[in-house]
Amino acid sequence: MLYLIGLGLGDAKDITVKGLEVVRRCSRVYLEAYTSVLSVGKEALEEFYGRKLILADREEVEQEADNILKDADISDVAFLVVGDPFGATTHSDLVLRAAKLGIPYRVIHNASILNAVGCCGLQLYKFGETVSIVFWTDTWRPESFFDKVKKNRRNGMHTLCLLDIKVKEQSLENLIKGKKVYEPPRYMSVSQAAQQLLEIVQNHRLQGEEPAITEETLCVGLARVGAEDQKIAAGTLQQMCTVDLGGPLHSLIITGGNLHPLETEMLSLFSIPENSSESQCIDGP
Amino acid sequence: MLYLIGLGLGDAKDITVKGLEVVRRCSRVYLEAYTSVLSVGKEALEEFYGRKLILADREEVEQEADNILKDADISDVAFLVVGDPFGATTHSDLVLRAAKLGIPYRVIHNASILNAVGCCGLQLYKFGETVSIVFWTDTWRPESFFDKVKKNRRNGMHTLCLLDIKVKEQSLENLIKGKKVYEPPRYMSVSQAAQQLLEIVQNHRLQGEEPAITEETLCVGLARVGAEDQKIAAGTLQQMCTVDLGGPLHSLIITGGNLHPLETEMLSLFSIPENSSESQCIDGP
Repeated sequence: MLYLIGLGLGDAKDITVKGLEVVRRCSRVYLEAYTSVLSVGKEALEEFYGRKLILADREEVEQEADNILKDADISDVAFLVVGDPFGATTHSDLVLRAAKLGIPYRVIHNASILNAVGCCGLQLYKFGETVSIVFWTDTWRPESFFDKVKKNRRNGMHTLCLLDIKVKEQSLENLIKGKKVYEPPRYMSVSQAAQQLLEIVQNHRLQGEEPAITEETLCVGLARVGAEDQKIAAGTLQQMCTVDLGGPLHSLIITGGNLHPLETEMLSLFSIPENSSESQCIDGP
Repeated sequence: MLYLIGLGLGDAKDITVKGLEVVRRCSRVYLEAYTSVLSVGKEALEEFYGRKLILADREEVEQEADNILKDADISDVAFLVVGDPFGATTHSDLVLRAAKLGIPYRVIHNASILNAVGCCGLQLYKFGETVSIVFWTDTWRPESFFDKVKKNRRNGMHTLCLLDIKVKEQSLENLIKGKKVYEPPRYMSVSQAAQQLLEIVQNHRLQGEEPAITEETLCVGLARVGAEDQKIAAGTLQQMCTVDLGGPLHSLIITGGNLHPLETEMLSLFSIPENSSESQCIDGP
C-alpha cells in the first residue's frame, strides 16, 4: 500500500494520530521536500516519528517514482507531504503511477495552506482561483497570474497567492556544466511579493489601464501559519511592501473587496497601525 | 487559553498529535456538532481522547458563547470542530468574543472538506467560490447559488457544493408550540443534490436560457472523504442523480470544463461505467 500522508503546517506534532501510526509501521518513509517545508527540519521529524526519512526531491519524485513505488504492492510505503498531499498537483502523478502498477493507495489528509488561511478571518468559500507568485529574474518577469487576481477581485473573491520556494536550484553556470551544486534555498517573503505586485500595478497604469488592484487594496500577509510563532498582518498593498513577518513560509492574500462585517472585524485583530513608518509584525495567535 | 481544534474528516484518530495533547489537558472540551459530523459518534471520540465532551449545538455556540469562554482566561478550554475550525464561518464569532474578553486563543488546524476534495484529482487551485445546496421544501426552493456555479464554470473553475445538514431541527409545529422536540438528523446525498440541480437546469431552459450546466456536465460525487470507506464517483450530472454513495457526509463537485490531462486521468479512476442503468458505487482509495 502506498500511503500519502499530510504533515500539516507547523511542526512534527501536526501529523495526525492515524498518520503517525502508519509512518511508524511502513517499511520505507519518504519526505517530499520541494513543494513546501515545515519550520522544523528532517532530523526533528525523524526523532519524533522514530523513523529514518528518505528525502525525495523533485528529480526523485518526477523521474524516479518507480523507486518510491518499489515493492509497495507487498509492503507499506509512506510518502510524506507538508500540508495536504493534494495541495500540490504534482502528487497526482504518483497516484496515477501507483494505480497503473496495481498498487493500492490511501490518503491521510491534513491541513494545507489552502484551508488554514481561514485563520485570518476571511471566509474560505469566498476565495477564487489560487495563484503562484514566482521570483522575478532579470530576464523573466511573468505577470500572467495578475489576470487571475483581477478576475477574482472583479468577482468579489479573495486571491490566495502562494509564494515561490527555491530549493535545490542550480545556478545557470552549474546547470550548463552539469555540476550538481545547489544554491542556498530561497523563500519569497510577503514584502517581496507585494513589491513585485506593485510594480505590475504601476506597469498597467503606465499603459493607461485603471488597475483593479492599487496601492490601497486591502491585503493580508501570513507567515508560518499553524506554527507557534505564526504572524498575520492586514493592511494595504503598499504597507505589505515593508512589513517584516520573519522567517518562511509566507503567503499573501489580496482581498476581494466587499468584506462581510465578520471578516472586517477579524482582520482588525491583525491590522497594521496606520501611521507606522515601518510596518510592524503583528503577533498572530 | 481558548483552543479551536480541527478534528479532520474521518474518525477519532484524525486529530493531530498536537490537538490530542491539548484536548487531554484542557479543563473543558466542547464538541461543535452542527456544521459537520464525523462518521463516529461522540462516545467513540470520548473513549479515544480519554475525555468527556460537552456537545455544543448551534444555540449554545451562538447564544451562550459566554459559557464556553467562562474562565478561559485562567484555564484551558478546547472547542473541537469537525474538519478545520475555519471551514465554517460561524466560528469567527467565537474568536472575536474571546478577543473582546481578552482571552488568548490558538488554532490547531486540520484537513477540511475544502482541501480534502483534492483527493479526486481535480486541482485545488482551480476551484472557484464554494456554494451550499440546501434541502428544498414545498415553499422554499432557493436557486440563487446557481449563479455562482455558472460564474465559476464560465471562468473554467470547479465548484464545490457543500450539501445540507439538518441536525436538531424542529418541525414548524413544534417550533410554534415551543416544544424542544427535534426531527431525526438529515444529510443531503449527492443524488438528491443532483436532482435539485437538474430541476434548476430545466427551469432555466424553460425560460429560454441556454444553461451553462446541462445533464451532460461532468461532476464528481464524494462521500465520507477521509474515512476508510470513502467513495468517489465521476460522471455526468444525469448520472449523479442515481448514484448511491452510501451514508453521509456527501459533497458534489461541478467541474469547470477544460480539464488538465492529469485531472482527466485522475477522474478516470473513479468514473461511473457508461452503460450502468443504475450507477454504482466506486470504491475510492
